[in-house]
Amino acid sequence: LQSKLPDVGVSIFTQMTLLAQETGAINLAQGFPDYDPPQELLEALARHARTPGHHQYAPMPGLPRLREAIAAQVARLHADAPAPDPATEITVTAGATEALYAVLAAVVRPGDEVVVFEPAYDLYGPAIRLQGGVPRYVRLPAPHFRPDWDAVRRVVSPRTRLVLVNTPHNPSGALFTADDWHELARLLDGTDALVLSDEVYEHLVFDGAPRMSARQHPALRERSFVLSSFGKTYHATGWKVGYCIAPPALTAEVRRVHQFLTFAVSTPTQHALADALTADATDAHARGLAGFYQQKRDEFRALLDGAGWDLLPVPGGYFQLARYDAFSPASDLAFAQFLARDKGVAVVPVSAFYHDGFDDGLIRFCFAKESTTLQAAAARLRQ
Amino acid sequence: LQSKLPDVGVSIFTQMTLLAQETGAINLAQGFPDYDPPQELLEALARHARTPGHHQYAPMPGLPRLREAIAAQVARLHADAPAPDPATEITVTAGATEALYAVLAAVVRPGDEVVVFEPAYDLYGPAIRLQGGVPRYVRLPAPHFRPDWDAVRRVVSPRTRLVLVNTPHNPSGALFTADDWHELARLLDGTDALVLSDEVYEHLVFDGAPRMSARQHPALRERSFVLSSFGKTYHATGWKVGYCIAPPALTAEVRRVHQFLTFAVSTPTQHALADALTADATDAHARGLAGFYQQKRDEFRALLDGAGWDLLPVPGGYFQLARYDAFSPASDLAFAQFLARDKGVAVVPVSAFYHDGFDDGLIRFCFAKESTTLQAAAARLRQ
Ligand SMILES: CSCCC(=O)C(=O)O
Ligand SMILES: CSCCC(=O)C(=O)O
Repeated sequence: LQSKLPDVGVSIFTQMTLLAQETGAINLAQGFPDYDPPQELLEALARHARTPGHHQYAPMPGLPRLREAIAAQVARLHADAPAPDPATEITVTAGATEALYAVLAAVVRPGDEVVVFEPAYDLYGPAIRLQGGVPRYVRLPAPHFRPDWDAVRRVVSPRTRLVLVNTPHNPSGALFTADDWHELARLLDGTDALVLSDEVYEHLVFDGAPRMSARQHPALRERSFVLSSFGKTYHATGWKVGYCIAPPALTAEVRRVHQFLTFAVSTPTQHALADALTADATDAHARGLAGFYQQKRDEFRALLDGAGWDLLPVPGGYFQLARYDAFSPASDLAFAQFLARDKGVAVVPVSAFYHDGFDDGLIRFCFAKESTTLQAAAARLRQ
Repeated sequence: LQSKLPDVGVSIFTQMTLLAQETGAINLAQGFPDYDPPQELLEALARHARTPGHHQYAPMPGLPRLREAIAAQVARLHADAPAPDPATEITVTAGATEALYAVLAAVVRPGDEVVVFEPAYDLYGPAIRLQGGVPRYVRLPAPHFRPDWDAVRRVVSPRTRLVLVNTPHNPSGALFTADDWHELARLLDGTDALVLSDEVYEHLVFDGAPRMSARQHPALRERSFVLSSFGKTYHATGWKVGYCIAPPALTAEVRRVHQFLTFAVSTPTQHALADALTADATDAHARGLAGFYQQKRDEFRALLDGAGWDLLPVPGGYFQLARYDAFSPASDLAFAQFLARDKGVAVVPVSAFYHDGFDDGLIRFCFAKESTTLQAAAARLRQ
C-alpha cells in the first residue's frame, strides 16, 4: 500500500510527549495544561453522564442549547459584529481539528491553492494535500511573526481557494491586527477566495491588545470560517469539542462534510459545556483567561531571566519561543532532544512547523502549566 | 461557492427525526435506542468526569488501557483469530463514522474504485466521492440481501482499491456468511484491493447464527480494516467512540489521517468505556445483546402480525424492513411521510439507501426501543 502521506510520521507533539515519558522530562512540549477544567464543568459532565436520555445521537450540527450559548457568548464578546445565527451559522465539531478538516474537505478541490502562513500547526499542510489542494506557504519572520503583505500578494492568484489564518498564532503568539485584517480584505476583494480563521486561542491575548476575530471585519465575515474550541478555553483539551462559525451558505457546506466525518459530537459533553457557557453569562471565565495566562507568561519569563535565553515576545497564546544564545546545536531538533535527555525538559523544535524543515534555532515552551511545574522546569534549564 | 456534494442534503435520518418531532410521531426512523447505557457505564463516566488528570489529550491512537481492553475482548469473542495488537493494530476514533472516513481518506485516491453493496448506509457514497473515488454499486436483492458473487465479479477490476462490507447489514440485517467471506477472499486473491468491514452491529446476530468477522478469515484479515463502535453495543450512540482494527501497515495509514481528522477522542469517555470492557471479563454484556435484540425483533414482529405488513426476515441488527401489501403509494418516501403524518410513526424509506433512489416499496423500522414504545407504535400502525 503506497501511502497518501508518505512524509507524515508521528507528530512532533506525540514524539516529544513520548520522549518526556521515556526520559522523565517535564513536558513543556505538547500544548495542554497540567491543571483541570473548572470544578463546575467537571460536575456538569458528571451530572449529564447520569442524566437519562442524554446518551443518544445529538443533532448533527450540535445541540441547539449549546449552539445558542455559543452564539450568545460570541455576540457579547464581539459586540461590534452581529450575533451568529445558531440554526444556520454554527456547527459543533469534534474539536477545532475536525472543523478544520471539514472546511478543507468541503471547499478545497484538486489543484486549488491554499495560502498558509509558516510556521504553521502541523496538520494544515497534510490536510490540504489530502484534498488534492496545494499549500502556498508564506513565511512569517521572527521575532514578531507579522505577515508581509507584499509576500502574501505574490502567492495569491485566481487559483487561491482559501487563506488560512491562525490568530493568536501557534507557535509564536502573534496576533492579526486590525491592519492585517484590512490588508487581507483588500487583497481578497473581488476574488471568491475564502478565509479559514483558526482562533482557538482567542481569549489568550495579552497586554491589553484587542481580541480581533475575522468575524469583526464585515467584508471578511462573509467569506470566513471562524474556528474555536473549548479545549483551550476550559483547560479541557481532552474533551474534543470545537465549533465552526460561518455564513449560512458556507455552513451548509461544512455540515455536508461534518455529517460524514463524525456526524455528531458527544451528547453529555455538549450538555456540560452548554451549562458552563450559560452559567458564565458575564463571560467572567473567558475574560479572565487573558490575565491568567499573561501571568504564567510573565512568571515563566522571569524564571528564565539572565539564564542565557533569548526570549521572543509573546503577545498571546500558550507558548514561549526561545533561542539559546550561548549554544549552537546541529539543529533545533537536536537541541530539543538534548534538553529532554540532559536537562529534563521536553520542548518542541520550531522547525516542525515548516514544511521544508526551516530551522531558525528556535524552540517552543508551553507555559500552560502550574507554577510549580514552571519553576521546576526553569530550575532544570538553569543548571 | 460550488458545492463538492451538491446532491447531498440533510440525511434521511435527520429529516425523519425532525418530521417525528414536528408531527409528534413515534420515532422508529433514526437508529438509536430509547433506553440508556448500563448504569455502571454512566457511573464510570461520572467518576472519570470528576477524576483529576483525565481531561487533556488522549494519545492519538487511543488510551492504551482502552485499546488493551478492546484487544482482550476481540480475542475472547473471535477465539479462532489471533488477538489484535493494541499498540499497532487498534485505533480509537470518533465513532465508526470517523473510522470509515479515515480509512477512505487514507487509501482511496482520485479514480480509485470502491465496491459498495446497496442498499448502503448513506455516508458510504459521498465519503468515497470526497476522496475522488468512484463507487461501484452492487445491488443486494430483497428479501435476503445476499451478495450475488457473479455480479460482484463483474465490477471488480484492477482499479478496485477497496470493497466495503457491512455485516450485520444496515438496513436489512443480512449477514455475511463463511461462504461469502470465502468468495470475497477468492475474488481478491492476487489483487491488492483492500476490505473495509463495517461491523458496528457485530453482537446483534440472531437465531444462533455465528458471528463472522472479516478478522476470522486469515487471507482477508491481512487486507481488512474492521470497524466497530460502542454506540450500538452499549446503547450509547451519542458518546461517539468507535475503533478500527487493521494490520500494522494499514493501521499506520489510518492513523496518519486520524491524526489530522480529529487527533484523539474524549479522554474521560475512553476511560469509562475501558472500565466497562474490563469489568465485563466474561463478555456477559456483549454476548447478551443477541438475545436482548432478538426478543425485541420477535416482539415487534408479533405486534404487527396479521396487520397487512409483509415483514422481511431479520437475521441481525437493529431494523425491521417491511412492505405494506394492501397499499401502493407513489413512493416509499411518500409512504414514510404518510406514516409519520397520518399514523404517527416515523420510519425510513429504504430508497434513501440507494444512490439512484431505487424504490422497492420498502420501509425500515428501528426496533431498538422499549416494549412500551414498540407497542404504542404497533397500535398506531394497526389503526
Ligand atoms: C493535538 S497535539 C498538539 C497540541 C497543540 O495544540 C500544540 O502543541 O501545538
Ligand atoms: C447517524 S444517524 C443514523 C443512525 C443509523 O445508524 C441509522 O439510522 O441507520
